[in-house]
Amino acid sequence: MTEELALLDKHDPLAPKQALFHCPENLIYLDGNSLGLMPYAAKQRIQEVTQEQWGNDLITSWNKHQWIDLPTTIGERIAPLIGAGQQQVVCCDSISINLFKVISSAIKLRPGRQEILSTHDNFPTDLYMVQGLQALLGEQHCTLRMVDEEQLASSIDEHTAAVLVTEVNFRTGRRLDIAAITAQAHRQGALCIVDLAHSAGVLPVQLDNWQVDFAVGCTYKYLNGGPGAPAFVYAAKRHQEEMCQPLFGWMGHKQGFAFAPGYEPANNARQLLTGTPSIISMSAVDAALDAYDNVNIDDVREKSKQMTSIFLKLIQQSRFCQELHCISPEDPELRGSQLSFEYEHAYSLCQALIDRGVIADFRAPNYIRFGFAPLYNSFQQIANAVRIMESVLAESIHLQSRYTVRKAVT
Amino acid sequence: MTEELALLDKHDPLAPKQALFHCPENLIYLDGNSLGLMPYAAKQRIQEVTQEQWGNDLITSWNKHQWIDLPTTIGERIAPLIGAGQQQVVCCDSISINLFKVISSAIKLRPGRQEILSTHDNFPTDLYMVQGLQALLGEQHCTLRMVDEEQLASSIDEHTAAVLVTEVNFRTGRRLDIAAITAQAHRQGALCIVDLAHSAGVLPVQLDNWQVDFAVGCTYKYLNGGPGAPAFVYAAKRHQEEMCQPLFGWMGHKQGFAFAPGYEPANNARQLLTGTPSIISMSAVDAALDAYDNVNIDDVREKSKQMTSIFLKLIQQSRFCQELHCISPEDPELRGSQLSFEYEHAYSLCQALIDRGVIADFRAPNYIRFGFAPLYNSFQQIANAVRIMESVLAESIHLQSRYTVRKAVT
Repeated sequence: MTEELALLDKHDPLAPKQALFHCPENLIYLDGNSLGLMPYAAKQRIQEVTQEQWGNDLITSWNKHQWIDLPTTIGERIAPLIGAGQQQVVCCDSISINLFKVISSAIKLRPGRQEILSTHDNFPTDLYMVQGLQALLGEQHCTLRMVDEEQLASSIDEHTAAVLVTEVNFRTGRRLDIAAITAQAHRQGALCIVDLAHSAGVLPVQLDNWQVDFAVGCTYKYLNGGPGAPAFVYAAKRHQEEMCQPLFGWMGHKQGFAFAPGYEPANNARQLLTGTPSIISMSAVDAALDAYDNVNIDDVREKSKQMTSIFLKLIQQSRFCQELHCISPEDPELRGSQLSFEYEHAYSLCQALIDRGVIADFRAPNYIRFGFAPLYNSFQQIANAVRIMESVLAESIHLQSRYTVRKAVT
Repeated sequence: MTEELALLDKHDPLAPKQALFHCPENLIYLDGNSLGLMPYAAKQRIQEVTQEQWGNDLITSWNKHQWIDLPTTIGERIAPLIGAGQQQVVCCDSISINLFKVISSAIKLRPGRQEILSTHDNFPTDLYMVQGLQALLGEQHCTLRMVDEEQLASSIDEHTAAVLVTEVNFRTGRRLDIAAITAQAHRQGALCIVDLAHSAGVLPVQLDNWQVDFAVGCTYKYLNGGPGAPAFVYAAKRHQEEMCQPLFGWMGHKQGFAFAPGYEPANNARQLLTGTPSIISMSAVDAALDAYDNVNIDDVREKSKQMTSIFLKLIQQSRFCQELHCISPEDPELRGSQLSFEYEHAYSLCQALIDRGVIADFRAPNYIRFGFAPLYNSFQQIANAVRIMESVLAESIHLQSRYTVRKAVT
């Protein structure tokens, strides 16, 4: 196995990308699905934006260094990674805020329909944003219906204004068929809103081809934009004329610098912007995207599937890992770039692994989640991670006593 | 005059603060009301957060470096600068987004009233956010009425859900009497929402004493948090139980990390949070606030009034500056920390000043705006800026031909 993995690493077309990232010595980082490693380019750009642009060029940087254009230029760089043509993606705000924009837009585009249909196990903030809109508009204008993932497509009906679906389940790693769900939504006269938090940069998303209506996603996971980096939002061109996202702000105005008292939305994706963007954080995203230059996303997906498959096989073969129950789909096609395991002492295991230089993450109540980032994780790292986990579990009788459960926040 | 100014600088209790900021050599920066200078502490913190926290400690930093608490810890540091007691201020999102939260809340707290009352010349994004809410809710639930600043207090009536007012007018620098407007709003059963964009860090704001209901403000002007740094939002404690801000996100949840499908707001100012915060930008704000340690805001205000008064006097006395018409109030008590002048060739003048190392800013259609930052501007700088402007205007016959009007974005 060791030789096989070395060979895989040797022939990995993405291997040269590893040098673009800072990985602390002796660390195996399997949490790129929470927060990507720091690209050196991002670090350098942050320094430059801080010292040269903010420090020296100050206010003139809005023009001189095109700060004002960052939300759109970054949007255009993200677009090809998610199968979107031009002028449909901008970078701004958080996923939550961007969801509010597109959920509200969808409700308005489907008068007479009040239902947002989603899944019980969607990422909570996605559900909360619908609940917030419902609190604001009242139940007669907006309701949230949640069903099981298996029932999602078949539950769309004439009350559904939009389906709100995350391509990859944050807990289980299960990947839903967005093309099929979107097609079914459209057959029922509904729209489809997709959350790409665990997709962007690691799955071959095809928003335009799948005819998705709206999408959101984050840049701090596989896109490596830094902690809490600004999110992105997509609105299909066919909706841009008619849609109305209600977070009117001066950055989304047709002519923001005219400082006119009346709002007129820009007639392109810029209408999705609201307030002044966080330039330092946003610049880091821009630089981080350099790592995706000349990357074929199919190569990324292929490596991701290999990595999850190998990791899972090694776990299943290990006599020490028998208590770990994989809750991710067995078929690599049906999962994203993560594997999740149910285990009674998941929190303690997670802490023990951190102490030994393997970073995974814990999700309540008792899941441990491993993310695989094809741009910087190697096959040999994966095998080493399993070996370390085996040694931890071999002493598992002591596990609970050594690690008391604290508040987990990652 | 020169000696007098030197003496003022010598006895300036804030003078030691200048050393905390990076000011490019030979630059006179009178645009701190747009983007504050870079504090060295912010630069250092950004490096540390990038390299050490993101780069090395990665996901564990959410706990280890208290990233998760930044919105509230920074909120508590801003609070005393705006006269707010604890647990009422958080740092997050942009002014625009935060306005949406509090305008929506105000509308809900005053059922039967649909009107948001503001001024024609309020900062446009403030007006846009109301227009966006109106587009979402419909006119029967939310309307925007705009009056002249002079008529604001007397226009509040039984239809007014809330007054939306910016303490310092972005164009004229005029300062409104928030205590009086709030008192009048309350007499009429309305709420008062205050935008502190041009106040925080430079005016002795007294939110609690004035009984203001909600407030927002930015951190990239006088608080020197960096370009597009996260904003802040205040909700008076008395509203926190009953209010409902509709941008429900996991950061505002009572127990965000329980990942429960139903939203329950935190019972304090944390309910104002929505999505994941931009850690790098937010950390810069935190470090920038160090400059306000041990600062008496009354000293800041006193110096600010002196600075604007001296600058105005020098301009008025200069035979070269006669065409500049001051649109800011004559009485320093009635203005913020800026002076604005109407001048036919304001854009060209602004560009010519930049070329000679004096940074002011242009506002359409023909205003030039000078901001005075008591923490780092000196009295002698002000006199030098006027001298340079005089020399530019002495050659003003050439001004228009040398600087063609381009799109202005600052």
